[in-house]
Amino acid sequence: MTAYDPNNIFAKILAGTIPSVKLYEDEDTLAFMDVMPQAPGHLLVIPKQGSRNLLDADPAVLAKLMPVVQKLANAAKEAFEADGIYIAQFNEPSAGQTVFHLHFHVIPRHEGVPLKPHAGGMADVEMLKAQAEKIKAAL
Amino acid sequence: MTAYDPNNIFAKILAGTIPSVKLYEDEDTLAFMDVMPQAPGHLLVIPKQGSRNLLDADPAVLAKLMPVVQKLANAAKEAFEADGIYIAQFNEPSAGQTVFHLHFHVIPRHEGVPLKPHAGGMADVEMLKAQAEKIKAAL
Repeated sequence: MTAYDPNNIFAKILAGTIPSVKLYEDEDTLAFMDVMPQAPGHLLVIPKQGSRNLLDADPAVLAKLMPVVQKLANAAKEAFEADGIYIAQFNEPSAGQTVFHLHFHVIPRHEGVPLKPHAGGMADVEMLKAQAEKIKAAL
Repeated sequence: MTAYDPNNIFAKILAGTIPSVKLYEDEDTLAFMDVMPQAPGHLLVIPKQGSRNLLDADPAVLAKLMPVVQKLANAAKEAFEADGIYIAQFNEPSAGQTVFHLHFHVIPRHEGVPLKPHAGGMADVEMLKAQAEKIKAAL
């Protein structure tokens, strides 16, 4: 297991040195819009405590994180009138991980609408901000 | 949200009326081999308390469940000398859910080896039992 690199993009979002479109924050957790969404409303939930991924996370951090993932999943489902929610969490590059700070993907699904590829094109920030307002209203 | 149906397959596995290849069990949680694996070592972790999926689960159940998901993920990675682990959790049919009792997929990944389709063919039970022994040895 490679050590946690505190210079990853999500650590910089947590430090406030890189901007993000925030949805929710508490003492232990941050949720924000994925800038390369696979579907409208695609968001990420991360713990503030650094770990490379799920495999090396503090179990107590996971225990606090998942109820927040649930809260955001329900809000995204409501905000986008989604038929379902896909939760994904990738550990190591072979599993699709591209940023090495633990994160859960929360992706609204609509029947018959395929997902865009993971880590595809950058979304328009103003569009993400408008989507974030809808999710925050449903929280 | 449709109500929880206590006659789903995983409820029957929990009740012991349908067999499964078990990996781990505690007061709140059961882990067993997926009978339609997308890769060798594909396993499922479920809470004993019934919920249709993540969206209607008791947050306290999620908090207890995730450290077990982590434990099984690390064991599967070790047992199959995997390069990574893919965690997936599907809510509602549009997101790929086929059994309506909350479950997390834990799937070992190897660099360059694509996953088989979700809910594809049934695996040989003796092969699953042999794989389960490897995972249990790594727990």
